[in-house]
Amino acid sequence: MFEPSGERASTSQSGRSSSATSVKTQDTLPSAGFNVAALAKIGEQAFQRGELVSAELVALTYGALVRQLFLDYQAPEDVNEELERIGYNIGLRLVDDFLARSAAPPCRSFQATAEIVARVAFRMYLGVSARPANFAADNTAYSILFDTNPLAEFVEVPDAVANTLWYSNIFCGVIRGALEMVQFSVRASFTRDMLRGDECNEIRVCLLRELEETVPLDKET
Amino acid sequence: MFEPSGERASTSQSGRSSSATSVKTQDTLPSAGFNVAALAKIGEQAFQRGELVSAELVALTYGALVRQLFLDYQAPEDVNEELERIGYNIGLRLVDDFLARSAAPPCRSFQATAEIVARVAFRMYLGVSARPANFAADNTAYSILFDTNPLAEFVEVPDAVANTLWYSNIFCGVIRGALEMVQFSVRASFTRDMLRGDECNEIRVCLLRELEETVPLDKET
Repeated sequence: MFEPSGERASTSQSGRSSSATSVKTQDTLPSAGFNVAALAKIGEQAFQRGELVSAELVALTYGALVRQLFLDYQAPEDVNEELERIGYNIGLRLVDDFLARSAAPPCRSFQATAEIVARVAFRMYLGVSARPANFAADNTAYSILFDTNPLAEFVEVPDAVANTLWYSNIFCGVIRGALEMVQFSVRASFTRDMLRGDECNEIRVCLLRELEETVPLDKET
Repeated sequence: MFEPSGERASTSQSGRSSSATSVKTQDTLPSAGFNVAALAKIGEQAFQRGELVSAELVALTYGALVRQLFLDYQAPEDVNEELERIGYNIGLRLVDDFLARSAAPPCRSFQATAEIVARVAFRMYLGVSARPANFAADNTAYSILFDTNPLAEFVEVPDAVANTLWYSNIFCGVIRGALEMVQFSVRASFTRDMLRGDECNEIRVCLLRELEETVPLDKET
């Protein structure tokens, strides 16, 4: 279960270029006022400045975690849920590191979080390019699309759970946890996964409600 | 449990320099005929050529794995054992990637594995410098010493298990698995851990026996 396939699950390495120049023009449209190329550069610089480890290590460590959860929970739906919960706890913590290190512009709208998550955070932590897409007309939902997934390299999901397990569901939790810390309560879920043969990976992020910022009583702002 | 401490567990970043030049002179002594600086360069080049992700990601993912094992096994001794077992399975696979990508010289002796593991593999997968030390007089044991441990960043081990848990025990399994694939059956175990207040991390590697290489029958060598 979750044995390495011997080959990388994705042969496309385009997403991992360290160059931030290959920005498609349509990506600049719903950018919430951001300069998309500048965001990609911010992410890349934070990635390069940070401490790095080999992607193999995280892929194999993550694989061990998923395998362990399967031993514990067995039902793939429960594994999905548990991965999301673990990711949520990671997201709650990771956001501090993100805000401290990324120098990304603040997310003044839910729409803006799409750009920051996709262009800066994915690049900063995973070294891959992601892009926001499929914005709902009322701006209460968007998708994060990405073609390269370091967690899923070497992975072969057993046939029995291939259509029920969302192998990389930890990402959904990380996004939910991190966005909650910047006052957006969301639900995030995979809708496409290249491990299932889809042409790209897609995480759908839906706004549930904006949280009220609680201002400490001893501060005037 | 295993909450991030807010600060990095180790403030020393010296081990993570991307320069391969700061090789101490005493390190060149028991080098099994290798040029130590060249080995470090091989490791660094393989690290840079490989795909990388942020160290935070692997630290938090690994933390989630350890936490999950605690939920399952509770006794820290059992968690140590399980981490070692998981690492062993990773080591069995990782060695193929290592041999394919590292271009490291072959390990013709057990003593030589010390140099390769410390100088090349640690740098290639973790981006950190490690060094072999404390060779047994009969060359059936050595230690791997390292000062920076990406797995242990952000980690605070709860007091109750601080002296029984070897938090990063997965490394011992990886070393055992990888060396078994190059015909050395070993036992590896932590003897010092900076998480316990030790001045460096030390993994002791003891040779149990050399395995016989099985030559496929249809090949003449």
